[in-house]
Amino acid sequence: MNYSMIIYILGHVLKFEAIFMTLPCLVAAIYHEKSGFSFLLTMVICLILGALMTQEKPKDTMFFAREGFVVVSLSWIIMSIFGAIPFVISREIPSFTDALFESISGFTTTGASILTDVESLSHACLLWRCFTHWIGGMGVFVFILAVLPMAGGHNVHLLRTESPGPSVEKLVPRLKNTAMILYCIYLIMTLLEIIILIAARMPVFDAITTALGCAGTGGFAIKNDSMASYSPLIQAIVTVFVILFGVNFNGYYLLTVKKKRNPLQIAEVRWYFTIIIVAILIITVNIYKSMDSVVWAFHHAAFQVGSIITTTGYYTTDYNLWPQVSKTVLVFLMFIGSCAGSTGCGFKVSRVIILFKMVKNEMQSFIHPRSIRTIKIDGKVLEKDTLRNVSVFLITYVILYFVSMFILAFDNFDMVTNFTTVVATLNNIGPGLELIGPTGNYSIFSDPTKYVLMFNMLAGRLELYPILLLFAPTTWTQQ
Amino acid sequence: MNYSMIIYILGHVLKFEAIFMTLPCLVAAIYHEKSGFSFLLTMVICLILGALMTQEKPKDTMFFAREGFVVVSLSWIIMSIFGAIPFVISREIPSFTDALFESISGFTTTGASILTDVESLSHACLLWRCFTHWIGGMGVFVFILAVLPMAGGHNVHLLRTESPGPSVEKLVPRLKNTAMILYCIYLIMTLLEIIILIAARMPVFDAITTALGCAGTGGFAIKNDSMASYSPLIQAIVTVFVILFGVNFNGYYLLTVKKKRNPLQIAEVRWYFTIIIVAILIITVNIYKSMDSVVWAFHHAAFQVGSIITTTGYYTTDYNLWPQVSKTVLVFLMFIGSCAGSTGCGFKVSRVIILFKMVKNEMQSFIHPRSIRTIKIDGKVLEKDTLRNVSVFLITYVILYFVSMFILAFDNFDMVTNFTTVVATLNNIGPGLELIGPTGNYSIFSDPTKYVLMFNMLAGRLELYPILLLFAPTTWTQQ
Repeated sequence: MNYSMIIYILGHVLKFEAIFMTLPCLVAAIYHEKSGFSFLLTMVICLILGALMTQEKPKDTMFFAREGFVVVSLSWIIMSIFGAIPFVISREIPSFTDALFESISGFTTTGASILTDVESLSHACLLWRCFTHWIGGMGVFVFILAVLPMAGGHNVHLLRTESPGPSVEKLVPRLKNTAMILYCIYLIMTLLEIIILIAARMPVFDAITTALGCAGTGGFAIKNDSMASYSPLIQAIVTVFVILFGVNFNGYYLLTVKKKRNPLQIAEVRWYFTIIIVAILIITVNIYKSMDSVVWAFHHAAFQVGSIITTTGYYTTDYNLWPQVSKTVLVFLMFIGSCAGSTGCGFKVSRVIILFKMVKNEMQSFIHPRSIRTIKIDGKVLEKDTLRNVSVFLITYVILYFVSMFILAFDNFDMVTNFTTVVATLNNIGPGLELIGPTGNYSIFSDPTKYVLMFNMLAGRLELYPILLLFAPTTWTQQ
Repeated sequence: MNYSMIIYILGHVLKFEAIFMTLPCLVAAIYHEKSGFSFLLTMVICLILGALMTQEKPKDTMFFAREGFVVVSLSWIIMSIFGAIPFVISREIPSFTDALFESISGFTTTGASILTDVESLSHACLLWRCFTHWIGGMGVFVFILAVLPMAGGHNVHLLRTESPGPSVEKLVPRLKNTAMILYCIYLIMTLLEIIILIAARMPVFDAITTALGCAGTGGFAIKNDSMASYSPLIQAIVTVFVILFGVNFNGYYLLTVKKKRNPLQIAEVRWYFTIIIVAILIITVNIYKSMDSVVWAFHHAAFQVGSIITTTGYYTTDYNLWPQVSKTVLVFLMFIGSCAGSTGCGFKVSRVIILFKMVKNEMQSFIHPRSIRTIKIDGKVLEKDTLRNVSVFLITYVILYFVSMFILAFDNFDMVTNFTTVVATLNNIGPGLELIGPTGNYSIFSDPTKYVLMFNMLAGRLELYPILLLFAPTTWTQQ
């Protein structure tokens, strides 16, 4: 293990975190809030530590997949720890466990909160919570690679570890340019949403934080009732943008830069929209009796479906009170998640497609045992390694799911709460059903449970293995 | 598709069903019950139909995997339909849907009942319910192959389709002898349990039905409170036998015939007992405060763990009232199920072992991407096809799970009821939690839902694919 290289890269991460904190400092200055000092202090600590750790570049820059996993996992943990410090120093979230929970929930774009009264936070802290969503949404290494010249072939390990989905496509031959293109699309779409929200008469601060939360598919809101008290127009805009941020970013690249292909020609994008439309229709039919009108039912159905399939977690209504069919559909969407290569989390639509095709193939092989069959997506034959990867991902996911459910049971809440808490953290959604539904929050859990949920959020965002490998002895002992 | 061969085999199945029905007829004669006539009438119908269908052996006996799947699935469906007729004719279960549910639940060794008052049934019907467990436990084709000389190489397709677990091992070179050995072990163990139960002062009729239910890991009881009103000694005997019937029968073969190997040398058997012991300990610790003593807590924990991991479904206490940790452990056991090659159902311990090893391998491959790793169980390297099989089985399982959950949601019961109903039927257990817990039953569901659950029970018992293939158009259209 190349420890000096790991420390060097972690130092860079800390320096970048300091830079990110200028934004809440600025907000504190605007609103004359004392909490700005806690951000300033944390910035200084990050800068000093970062400078010490990056004092000299290691001579040995050899870097393998194993180091890639370790450095990405540690980066996210360190970012979250330092991201939690301002909450503690400012006494806005006095418990370190709670602050760390909030910070991890932010960076992993989960949006699960231990706060019972969000509105009592300072503007600086509110902004920082949403900004961590934005940073975590696209990934911190995608950002670092986009702006920092880092030599060596190891960058692809970092990007591959951090990017969600079964495979990473380079949009252009140079990795740095791919990262830049992704961040440009991300930034432009975020700015566009801010402008449109302001045009729809949302207050500027609300528009910025909401857009940051949408873009990262996070879900931290600045109101206690999330999006429920905003106008239907604002809610509709959020619905559209949230769904757009769940699309594979390769689609936007093709649409804007290449101008060649229709994004709907990508199978995953097609399935993603099909699932969304079907889910909205089912829920609309299922809930319209309890709503004032079909249009209103459609409005709420669309918002909740968009918010949940993209693993964002905003809400406009308490879907805990919906009939069982709608709740079951929402739980399915929680599992499925958004497109690979988007800022959303979850199991990913592309993996779901692959799983379905694997089952179809298996059934065909029973009828014709000797035929050789391949699985194609978008005309490309998938390699056996990819197929094994996807199925083992499901297995790992199921195992993690069961282990978490077991540990949560010790808090002795009902099974639906436990069940959806694990889905909501492992898939980085935020709210679930029953006690952690729209009107509830995560303050009910004991501290040990909170650490398990933090583990789940990190594991979910980094697609399980990087975090799990941290706990595998062979990662550290083997040559 | 060789239709004439399929009809010929189905005819044999009907004839065997007629023979099986002599037992309830005998019981009706002993107890002077009118319901005997309904069994007699059904027997006559089965014999006439069976004789017509087996009038002449088809000239073309060519038989492939596809025909194997179709004939096994159709046999189980036809057996269940004719097994339901006596319930309807005798008016003891007047609704055909309910009678079919009860019959499928019997043959698939599920033990889920739509009856609210079991004790009102005649002895003949009670015995038939438990006897269907016994027939379904080992499988009807294993029986047919053991007693009937059927020429041709197609028998292995039948046995493989019907036997649970990821792979079928022939104990001895001749298939017929393998089938006979399995049935001998099965019969001897059942008789042994009957004798021991009678020795423990259980009434003879109760002992016979209970032993039949244990042997098939079914769970239909003849008392409304299942096993709760019997003496602790009887409950303890049932605990031991139920656990023994969940062991891979190959283990008994090695133990008794070969006298060479210790069954604990089989990895699956080792894991099976480890899981049972750990589960009993966790539940004992978790519930002993609410029980009179630790011994009593252990007694109930052991009974419920044994009953549920083997997918039997008897109970001695209402575990719906247990704390969340115990309930969660029971749900895990519902998923895991018993050993492959036993009469139990569920996901199977051996598959769980393989899944864990696949995850371990995958994680190793991240650290050393170029190393080639194999998965061994009991010293044998598993083929890639087996691994793919097991992982696709999980995928299919998860998909079926979600689809069933969705359809069940339309009955608008709570999510825990729906969740455990699907587990309890797909894994052939019987009782679940909440409304279908020990004190509940399946009469609450609507008729369409009941048909979905029947599908699940059949799919679960035949390990998904045979039943699914019935619905795949290519099964019928492709040459």
